[in-house]
Amino acid sequence: VTLRLHWSPDSANLVVRIALEELGLTYEPVRVDRSRAAHKAPAYLKLNPQGLIPVLEDGDLVLFETGAILLHLADRTGRLGPEGPAARDPQARAACLKWLFYLSNTLHADLRAAFYADRYVAEAAVPALRDGMAARLKGHMAMLEGVLAPTGWLAAATPTLADFYLAVCLRWAQIYPTGRPVLAGGAGFPRLGSLMQAVEARPAALRACAAEAIPGRPFTKPEPPALPVEQVRG
Amino acid sequence: VTLRLHWSPDSANLVVRIALEELGLTYEPVRVDRSRAAHKAPAYLKLNPQGLIPVLEDGDLVLFETGAILLHLADRTGRLGPEGPAARDPQARAACLKWLFYLSNTLHADLRAAFYADRYVAEAAVPALRDGMAARLKGHMAMLEGVLAPTGWLAAATPTLADFYLAVCLRWAQIYPTGRPVLAGGAGFPRLGSLMQAVEARPAALRACAAEAIPGRPFTKPEPPALPVEQVRG
Repeated sequence: VTLRLHWSPDSANLVVRIALEELGLTYEPVRVDRSRAAHKAPAYLKLNPQGLIPVLEDGDLVLFETGAILLHLADRTGRLGPEGPAARDPQARAACLKWLFYLSNTLHADLRAAFYADRYVAEAAVPALRDGMAARLKGHMAMLEGVLAPTGWLAAATPTLADFYLAVCLRWAQIYPTGRPVLAGGAGFPRLGSLMQAVEARPAALRACAAEAIPGRPFTKPEPPALPVEQVRG
Repeated sequence: VTLRLHWSPDSANLVVRIALEELGLTYEPVRVDRSRAAHKAPAYLKLNPQGLIPVLEDGDLVLFETGAILLHLADRTGRLGPEGPAARDPQARAACLKWLFYLSNTLHADLRAAFYADRYVAEAAVPALRDGMAARLKGHMAMLEGVLAPTGWLAAATPTLADFYLAVCLRWAQIYPTGRPVLAGGAGFPRLGSLMQAVEARPAALRACAAEAIPGRPFTKPEPPALPVEQVRG
């Protein structure tokens, strides 16, 4: 059965691509041409009625939502991460479930509101929303910094799918110009910075970034990238 | 093994309580006294470092995040809903995964931002954020109305855990005074209204509401309830 990943550069599909590479799965990338609004065309809306990227097709199964795709890959491979633990390990599974939902509905959601503030509120309120989100994001980072204390990873002694999702969120938090940087090179949050850099250095992440033509050491690069902020769309 | 549900009236734990009742699970309710900020006390923060309700303890497993708890209950019982399908049914599982994440990070997240706008932005921007969220919520409802077309449920021919989460979100959307009602008695979204009323009429939902002292037919009741809006906290 072929896995087909519908992707665009440096969208949330980067998380899925890293997971696919980490788990050693082969997949067919299907580029979605955002410049022609292909993600809002009827054929794509049949896959995801939200018109968001990524979508993963697994035979006749259609998955969307980054967290859902990650859990599907865990069930499919029997693993929560490349070095284990097993997908059915009770403690690690519980941790992955709760942190994946947290990342999806809080950290990623607030990053999206900061980046795309103009899609949430009228123009006059955009600075207020960005300020509010920056304050919330700092709170999230402080909480997560504490969670990482035991092992440096969210759910186990080795990296899991939840960590790859977190690492990409942290990457967005520091490299995209929201006007309110919250994580400059990991400053103030050493465990978050270490996690981000550790994921960045892994061959799977390097392959995923190369496949999307994201240059250099992109996770910890301090300058804004050449890609427009539009590309962060989750 | 005893399930312990840490709850407060009519918070997101209502979703979990309905799911527990629907799946025929017995559980010990542990009331969290929000008026004394028990959800921000060290003992509770050890369960959930976010200080949010609900938390489900399953033996030595600690789950938080509504969607994570629902998936845990599906794995535990082998079912995605009271009349099936099986938790490992590929199509229904994929649908539950993606809609649970969607509900968590979009519908529920935007409802929370509308209700608690003052926690997201400075006071002057609260009306703008409520307006923005109301517009987004209408878009979400329209999309979901289309998704329900085949069977009236999100993920299968019979109700699943995703539908119970959706029903409670719809309840919040219409009964709480955000100043921008988006779903008055289901008006404009007949399938959403039918789903909400169908869940409301189920014995499990009636038991869950009775246990939380939510009076009457609360899902479709047009008036704001006696409980303060504070209680909606997800």
